[in-house]
Amino acid sequence: MQSLQVSLGVRSYPIHIGNPGGDSFQSAFFDAIPKSSKVIVVHDASVKEFADGIARSLNPVSGKVPLLAVESGETSKSIEQLDRLWKSMLALKADRQSVLVAVGGGVIGDLVGFLASTWNRGVRFVQVPTTLLAMVDSSVGGKTGINLPEAKNVIGAFWQPHMVWIDVSSLNTLPDREYRSGLAEVIKYGVILDEAFFERLEEQSSSILERNAVAVTEIVRRSCELKAHVVAEDEYETKGLRAILNYGHTFGHAIEALAEYGTYLHGEAISIGMTMAGNLALALGRWTERDLERQTKLFARFGLPTQIASSIAGRFSQAAMLESMILDKKTSHGRLHLILPTRIGHVETVVDAPLNAIQDAIDACIS
Amino acid sequence: MQSLQVSLGVRSYPIHIGNPGGDSFQSAFFDAIPKSSKVIVVHDASVKEFADGIARSLNPVSGKVPLLAVESGETSKSIEQLDRLWKSMLALKADRQSVLVAVGGGVIGDLVGFLASTWNRGVRFVQVPTTLLAMVDSSVGGKTGINLPEAKNVIGAFWQPHMVWIDVSSLNTLPDREYRSGLAEVIKYGVILDEAFFERLEEQSSSILERNAVAVTEIVRRSCELKAHVVAEDEYETKGLRAILNYGHTFGHAIEALAEYGTYLHGEAISIGMTMAGNLALALGRWTERDLERQTKLFARFGLPTQIASSIAGRFSQAAMLESMILDKKTSHGRLHLILPTRIGHVETVVDAPLNAIQDAIDACIS
Repeated sequence: MQSLQVSLGVRSYPIHIGNPGGDSFQSAFFDAIPKSSKVIVVHDASVKEFADGIARSLNPVSGKVPLLAVESGETSKSIEQLDRLWKSMLALKADRQSVLVAVGGGVIGDLVGFLASTWNRGVRFVQVPTTLLAMVDSSVGGKTGINLPEAKNVIGAFWQPHMVWIDVSSLNTLPDREYRSGLAEVIKYGVILDEAFFERLEEQSSSILERNAVAVTEIVRRSCELKAHVVAEDEYETKGLRAILNYGHTFGHAIEALAEYGTYLHGEAISIGMTMAGNLALALGRWTERDLERQTKLFARFGLPTQIASSIAGRFSQAAMLESMILDKKTSHGRLHLILPTRIGHVETVVDAPLNAIQDAIDACIS
Repeated sequence: MQSLQVSLGVRSYPIHIGNPGGDSFQSAFFDAIPKSSKVIVVHDASVKEFADGIARSLNPVSGKVPLLAVESGETSKSIEQLDRLWKSMLALKADRQSVLVAVGGGVIGDLVGFLASTWNRGVRFVQVPTTLLAMVDSSVGGKTGINLPEAKNVIGAFWQPHMVWIDVSSLNTLPDREYRSGLAEVIKYGVILDEAFFERLEEQSSSILERNAVAVTEIVRRSCELKAHVVAEDEYETKGLRAILNYGHTFGHAIEALAEYGTYLHGEAISIGMTMAGNLALALGRWTERDLERQTKLFARFGLPTQIASSIAGRFSQAAMLESMILDKKTSHGRLHLILPTRIGHVETVVDAPLNAIQDAIDACIS
């Protein structure tokens, strides 16, 4: 396993990445967590077998570790699921020394992280992401939360895990579309922070698409490293830096909302969102046609959409998109903050971009 | 107004205490909060008029400040109320720059503080306590949360306010029984930390009971000062010190639970709980009969109970009390931690006190 550290003072924690075997989870876990803690595994129902393995590896030390299953899908990031888990915690007599282990994708990580932040005013938790998206994005950095039916992630907390355990072999059973969706966030890191990494993605696209373990470990490691750096500098997104991770996300969240959650996977919406942001950056003379084209080509190479499907284009009026973008939480005092690139490898925050330019950038992605 | 500071690094905040007039709230508020923030007042329905005044004083700067009323009573610290408030926040288009103002007793402060901690991963809030209990206890220190039907405060967060505003004139309309209930926590500070303060309570009991503004301001100020000191040393209750504030509370919470929430006011249950803890300390030879007697006499002087009422004594078996105490969150790995006095002005944490002694200490308070 390769290991990184997220440096956050007393809240620092390790990320382990690789293709482990045997009891390596158990030993890493108890490096981070006291052995006397009661452990509870909460997992996505679709990765029951993998979660069983995680729980089983702790049993010799922790006694029989209980497992709680949560149905797959964004709709599980709900008040109802949270309520059910709170009540399960009580039934299991979880106390403030208890530790939660989240096994699954971003939905599970966000939900269980928020559960951990709110149980007894905060208990420890460990992230075991099983999707590429969660590995490179949501499992690192401590953003946790649930949705209201009308708005994503408006309820939540900053709550850092005590360890992130990334076993890339858990990607072997991930559906192809979900794997590619995760690649959208990987591309994002290249565009916002690291041109050399973007180039490697272009060059190694075949081995990445084949899920070659070495290539996958490398892109996950570099993505986590870049994210860890940003999070260490701006844990609570108050200094502007962390906001760069939202590149494509204000457009993307509006796309997810208007298409109805579930039509697009998160990475697919973000891929279209980054294209809209790229269009806008081009229109404002912030980056070149060649930069935008490289971004678009890499999305295409990884089978990611850059246009709204014509079958649902009718839902995407400019007015509806704008309203949804302003409702998105990345507004400040009602003013739209957008992250726009100046070149592959660098982005800036732009406040109050001209509305007509935003509208044109949206339109160009609706066939 | 007198002012104190709770020293918590970047999370430090002022407590203002006194009998203010005119626009003093407005100016203190905008010393702590940016003027461009959207402000939302959430208040106990029983203090609508006072809350209206608070909101009105901000209107000239903040525009029309919306008010959300919450029904009085512990049952409002529920998932259902939280859910309703989350949805109201969305309807009001609250964003991450929004500020909540909690006007009411401990229920409102705990509920609104938790609402603030979970909205957009945490927004600012201001505590305006209107009961003595909230002024001297829950409004300072950042413990926020709600109850499950079977367990108090198991859901919550540490989330510090940006200011605490204590207008002692809001006590004028507080029912006598609630005022006396608040005095139980005031007495607690004397027993756990400050014998001289305990003595002043004994000496000035008449003016305190008459709610003389000078006497009330003094006991609130000293209580807040003592609590602020403890909180500054041990914000997250991880170092042992903050736990001393739980003197009488493990017994008290069990009393509240067995009597059914609402039978006893919090301070009344704590007063009996401190008596049980005092009995236990005596039985273990930790403090003297004379110390216990002073404590009991002061409770009596303030009209606070030190015995379970005989009409409900049947609910209070030793077994039921013990089970409820172990369920209370102040256990660690299933072991009971009790705060017991060594003299008026000092307490210590005692782990695994003998069960028969605990049972006797409980029994002595059940007629």
